[in-house]
Amino acid sequence: MILPTRDCVFQTPGYVPGEQPQTTDFIKLNTNENPYPPPSEIFEVLQGELSKVRLYPDPVSTQLRKAAARVFGVSHEQILAGNGSDDILNIALRTFVNPGETVAFLDLTYSLYETITRVHGAAIKTFPTNEKFELDRPLICPEAKLIFLASPNPPVGQHLNRDYLEETCQKAAGVVLIDEAYVDFSAENHLDFLAKYDNVIISRTMSKSYSLAGMRVGFGIASIPIIEQMDKVRDSYNLDRLAQALGTAAFESYQYFQQVWAKVCQTRERLIKSLKELGFFVFDSDSNFVLASAEWIAASELYSQLKDQKVLVRYFKHPRISNYVRISIGTDEEIDRLLEAITQIKMSH
Amino acid sequence: MILPTRDCVFQTPGYVPGEQPQTTDFIKLNTNENPYPPPSEIFEVLQGELSKVRLYPDPVSTQLRKAAARVFGVSHEQILAGNGSDDILNIALRTFVNPGETVAFLDLTYSLYETITRVHGAAIKTFPTNEKFELDRPLICPEAKLIFLASPNPPVGQHLNRDYLEETCQKAAGVVLIDEAYVDFSAENHLDFLAKYDNVIISRTMSKSYSLAGMRVGFGIASIPIIEQMDKVRDSYNLDRLAQALGTAAFESYQYFQQVWAKVCQTRERLIKSLKELGFFVFDSDSNFVLASAEWIAASELYSQLKDQKVLVRYFKHPRISNYVRISIGTDEEIDRLLEAITQIKMSH
Repeated sequence: MILPTRDCVFQTPGYVPGEQPQTTDFIKLNTNENPYPPPSEIFEVLQGELSKVRLYPDPVSTQLRKAAARVFGVSHEQILAGNGSDDILNIALRTFVNPGETVAFLDLTYSLYETITRVHGAAIKTFPTNEKFELDRPLICPEAKLIFLASPNPPVGQHLNRDYLEETCQKAAGVVLIDEAYVDFSAENHLDFLAKYDNVIISRTMSKSYSLAGMRVGFGIASIPIIEQMDKVRDSYNLDRLAQALGTAAFESYQYFQQVWAKVCQTRERLIKSLKELGFFVFDSDSNFVLASAEWIAASELYSQLKDQKVLVRYFKHPRISNYVRISIGTDEEIDRLLEAITQIKMSH
Repeated sequence: MILPTRDCVFQTPGYVPGEQPQTTDFIKLNTNENPYPPPSEIFEVLQGELSKVRLYPDPVSTQLRKAAARVFGVSHEQILAGNGSDDILNIALRTFVNPGETVAFLDLTYSLYETITRVHGAAIKTFPTNEKFELDRPLICPEAKLIFLASPNPPVGQHLNRDYLEETCQKAAGVVLIDEAYVDFSAENHLDFLAKYDNVIISRTMSKSYSLAGMRVGFGIASIPIIEQMDKVRDSYNLDRLAQALGTAAFESYQYFQQVWAKVCQTRERLIKSLKELGFFVFDSDSNFVLASAEWIAASELYSQLKDQKVLVRYFKHPRISNYVRISIGTDEEIDRLLEAITQIKMSH
């Protein structure tokens, strides 16, 4: 028999995540993980949870959402916990967009927006960034039921223009999801939009700034009516016990993480300066990664030669950025190794 | 503004999971958890993983799927790992059914099938079980893109008639998902259907038989073409590091769990016998729960009075079973406490 796979699924190539070698001999600067571990205190909460793994977790992640609410300065009823923020993006899509309806996003942004929208069978309208990969006007799309905008926006990692973003929210006919996956590595955020616009969802993740990529903890923050509808689409037990416990404990170590973010930003500025000294063009960044290109070497070649030296960076085949590599901010030692490797490659070039 | 929530979402009340009190003073016989913990050895794998929580997990859960493949006797390419088997049900729906198309299932079964189908915007066709809550003929539904059948089927907990189930698979125009959440508490399963029918998905969970309800680990087992399409719909990092590690380790303790299953079945038979002595009608069960009713007390009243005594059982408002309670099989001590409580209630009645 011919399987009745939905056309929208069949026609979509799956999402390809960055390489995740399960060995430890790479310097891994390709998927924007935090180079510093969480403080070891957070693991103390596990003991109590391990004795209860036979029992279902709290289906609505109450403690985790309350801890998140304190950090984000909102009520926990305005928060939906997700199995990573990818879960939140998917839930928003399935809550607000019927297949065939339109989802809008920028031409250069997190590539998962396109994959999940296609898999859902919704129509895509992309809006061009300018030659500096910026949003240079409000994104006005009256037919869009959902607009995904990341700020900071990958792969450049800069915040979108705040005024244009705000006008986008004001004029949207549907919901605007502002993906703040990288926001803790910058001085600003858009939580204040929540008080002004009841059609805004802000997504956050603990993967990068809270050093918990391995645990899949993310959040949607919005008005209560939005959260109530999204909650119906969420899997009823979407976060396991240990993810809830570690996420909650990580919020308790907020001050530790603030120091980590400051350190990452410091290393980022040093990396940008050093890359420029090595003849690179590097964008300023509000994130824990930088986008860089050099005239003296093709990005694909730089990626390969660094991989040969066991340093992984991210290379994208997208035509507009195929001459750039994206480099996650590692520890100072890792960045030193990267810079040495690039120096060697340059000398032998 | 009026939020553009999809009509199918807005009109659906959310799924209501069984009560999950986050205190430990209840004897919890309401959500079919395993009363015995996993062997403590499995927690040894955590140490290595905790040092890597800052790193993304293996997106495709390779080790876990390989361990599952050994137990299920299939290739790991025939296995999709899910964040619980609920994730698998949802992925199957979103892979094979367009909104507006039809999903079929029995009138009395796992109530999540209805919730997720409604949220997805698909049409529902239910087929009646007979007066003994059995499938008494093949489920023939040419317009169904997906048929959900649980075997053992809640809330009775008996296997569906194997011949009727097989004829259902033979004659289906779409995909048949056989939900085997409770299968390890019985002597048979339907893995042999996979070799005969390329439109069959079997779902399994580690929540009940492997004592990992708190960790959200489930599987879809099917032909490779089915798994390939479902994999595109899956969240790209749907299982965190600790869930993957504990699931893998639990499969290594297969013999321990076989003993647990035998013990649970033994306690189940004792419970059935004791309930009958207390004047109950009790269905035979292939699961880790039993469905029971008594003429001397209404089920809703029994539920309440047991709750007053800190014993939680499950009561359903569905008209056909509103005179039954569903009791999960606990430890022998827990079942003794339940039986004492019922005896007291009966005496004061």
